[in-house]
Amino acid sequence: MNNLTKMNILKPANDVFEAFVDPEKIGNFWFSSSSERWQKDKTITLEYKEYNAIVEIEVLEIIDFKKIVYRWGESGEEHIVTISLTELDDLSTLVEVKEEGFKQDDPDFLNQLIGNKEGWVYMLTCLKGYLEFGVNKLRTGLAE
Amino acid sequence: MNNLTKMNILKPANDVFEAFVDPEKIGNFWFSSSSERWQKDKTITLEYKEYNAIVEIEVLEIIDFKKIVYRWGESGEEHIVTISLTELDDLSTLVEVKEEGFKQDDPDFLNQLIGNKEGWVYMLTCLKGYLEFGVNKLRTGLAE
Repeated sequence: MNNLTKMNILKPANDVFEAFVDPEKIGNFWFSSSSERWQKDKTITLEYKEYNAIVEIEVLEIIDFKKIVYRWGESGEEHIVTISLTELDDLSTLVEVKEEGFKQDDPDFLNQLIGNKEGWVYMLTCLKGYLEFGVNKLRTGLAE
Repeated sequence: MNNLTKMNILKPANDVFEAFVDPEKIGNFWFSSSSERWQKDKTITLEYKEYNAIVEIEVLEIIDFKKIVYRWGESGEEHIVTISLTELDDLSTLVEVKEEGFKQDDPDFLNQLIGNKEGWVYMLTCLKGYLEFGVNKLRTGLAE
């Protein structure tokens, strides 16, 4: 079972790619910090200062300006996230985020899937606001 | 079964309320047009020009600056949407959107719920971008 979310962003794929991998940029739309530049086989520590949360991700694959694949989660509960960038023309990029690893027999399956969808739609809209309009204060509005 | 989404918006409840009910404002963050001001017992035609879609809603309840309840959907398949506004202080409002009417025995239940969550998170983030930063071009980026 996977969760797929797609957003058109009116920027070249290069700009979208850098927003994810450059630790100077991620705080404008997603996590508050990223420990270093995302590269294949690196383990990156991502912090959500506002929610007092830390997550470690392992970067499995990077194709510059096209694809980022990473793993997160504890042993036996790993999820794989694939971020694919398709440049539609010089001015726009389709960003597709797919998360895999949900277990249909988990009693919390439905809530996990819905919460996951919420997070990805929110991040991608914040990314659009940041890259297209320079707005970097959208990212902490979602309430529990 | 319902779907609940919450967003903090750094504006007074009055401003958030008007963004929904004033047909001059909705095109900045949600539908492209609204046929008239939302008032109790009115049937409003909402258009999504970009997706060639039209939906009619029946406004069931309005409490100025606090609550909007409407019904949409065909007979036997109606959904009820409740938008609640709680002013946290003069500068911020918690917006809660609850949609009810999902049927757990529908084979498409899971997809409906996830698609619904996607739509509400997106709209609320676009609303935040519009009200807080004057950005009114976020609303058509989500791709199928």
